Amino acid sequence: MTSFADEMAVCAADIERALDRLLTAERLAGPGVPPDRLVAAMRHGSLNGGKRLRPLLVRQAASIFGVLPRESLAAGVAVELVHCYSLIHDDLPAMDDDDVRRGQPTVHRAYDDATAILAGDALPTLAFGILAGEDCHPDPAVRVRLVAELAAGAGAGGMVGGQVRDIEGETTALPDRQIAEMQAMKTGALIRAAVRMGAILGGAGDEALVHLTHYAEAAGRAFQLADDLLDVTASAEAMGKATGKDAANGKQTLVGRLGVEAARRHLAETVHDALTALTAFGPEADGLRATAMYFAARES
Amino acid sequence: MTSFADEMAVCAADIERALDRLLTAERLAGPGVPPDRLVAAMRHGSLNGGKRLRPLLVRQAASIFGVLPRESLAAGVAVELVHCYSLIHDDLPAMDDDDVRRGQPTVHRAYDDATAILAGDALPTLAFGILAGEDCHPDPAVRVRLVAELAAGAGAGGMVGGQVRDIEGETTALPDRQIAEMQAMKTGALIRAAVRMGAILGGAGDEALVHLTHYAEAAGRAFQLADDLLDVTASAEAMGKATGKDAANGKQTLVGRLGVEAARRHLAETVHDALTALTAFGPEADGLRATAMYFAARES
Repeated sequence: MTSFADEMAVCAADIERALDRLLTAERLAGPGVPPDRLVAAMRHGSLNGGKRLRPLLVRQAASIFGVLPRESLAAGVAVELVHCYSLIHDDLPAMDDDDVRRGQPTVHRAYDDATAILAGDALPTLAFGILAGEDCHPDPAVRVRLVAELAAGAGAGGMVGGQVRDIEGETTALPDRQIAEMQAMKTGALIRAAVRMGAILGGAGDEALVHLTHYAEAAGRAFQLADDLLDVTASAEAMGKATGKDAANGKQTLVGRLGVEAARRHLAETVHDALTALTAFGPEADGLRATAMYFAARES
Repeated sequence: MTSFADEMAVCAADIERALDRLLTAERLAGPGVPPDRLVAAMRHGSLNGGKRLRPLLVRQAASIFGVLPRESLAAGVAVELVHCYSLIHDDLPAMDDDDVRRGQPTVHRAYDDATAILAGDALPTLAFGILAGEDCHPDPAVRVRLVAELAAGAGAGGMVGGQVRDIEGETTALPDRQIAEMQAMKTGALIRAAVRMGAILGGAGDEALVHLTHYAEAAGRAFQLADDLLDVTASAEAMGKATGKDAANGKQTLVGRLGVEAARRHLAETVHDALTALTAFGPEADGLRATAMYFAARES
């Protein structure tokens, strides 16, 4: 019996190793060879000791259906590359203008704005290429579903659209419902895609996919609530990035709206929703259960 | 018998119509609904009366194998979306800092930098989603090849890598060979992907694919040489964007190196190379032949 902490650490180490092997001039070569500076910036923005929670969700959802960790690794890498690109672009001066990420200078601070934009651009393209490759899954019909799922989660109707709504919210007061919608897109959509991609890898039936989608949506809400709470309550040191920034930037969060105590209660309810969505599954879904609880309890 | 001008106009109109239908909040919906401002910025950067040369190459290469225009439309749209995103990001203040594109304000001038970054981010994601969808081709094995091809052409070893090399060249003198390599990536890689995607749609055999790849690489060189010549010789009015910018920005081009007359001779040789690569094909490749000649003769 592996503990959740061990499972998370093993997955993070697997992803870190896979990214380290992938992000080289040789592996990234196409019609030409990528310049060293670009490869270095892509590495800087990806190999940063992240918790790799989205690949963990891919792995845990896939494992419900008996998919081995190495068989879901490529899909996990693809989701993580999209997450990393979104952070690189979010940190840009034209966006959140952050100097520090996970205790290191952000990509545009370590390099420059143009390199950060382009390193960010290269990562999702790489992600889709990985999903299209044979290493991801032997069946092309599964691979195209993974591409479509990641594209839906990452695109205008998902992560990128949520980021635009978030920026709009800095100047226009949003009702609670619209804050929730924005967050469901900005962070929720990629978490949803991660869980569903795991399910697709496992050949989940329609009903199982519906349950897992409900789980993912609740888990995404829990993740965001916890993130917003940590922005209010945690130290910058613990988080490896500036905190208290939401209020300073006029970002609208449910925590700002409800207050810390009510938000904590809401978080507990949301985790309960995530667990309820998994009642159709037995112990094979314990990994996903542990992750939802971790989302609520994490301290950084 | 359709003239080349008619064929180009028909293809451009088809792409314009397809993009117009595609780029709506309804069609772009995913887990959430994209905000109007994002959709508008994506439309601004895409529905701009471009010549749609890359979709034309997809169509012409596919037609060699009997693929109908409507059967290659989705792949053409995908390539064009990637081209449009690259222009939106290239125009940003952190990159080329251009205010005008095709006679209109660039996306970051019409909206703002953050919206331009995010509109650019949403387009390639959409492109890969389109390639993964059933409307693109009935066989998933073909669709994953298209995704892989576009990812290789657009990524760190292709278009994005070329853009980084181009920026590096502004501060470091590059030898002629490296200028050619940079251009083969920056503009050549997507042209190459377009032709190869058409061939893949048509089920081209290995030998045909090699010939078409040689064609595409030569056509890409011709396109870039012509572009660099136009930057020196054409008016901003004819081009719908600022000209003379390469020299002003310290951009290194083969035209700057060889001089206008030698560059024109080199362009003629390059078109000859493109035509030579097509000798294995009969009149079914006349479209690609006409396009290579057009690349050299175009006046805007």
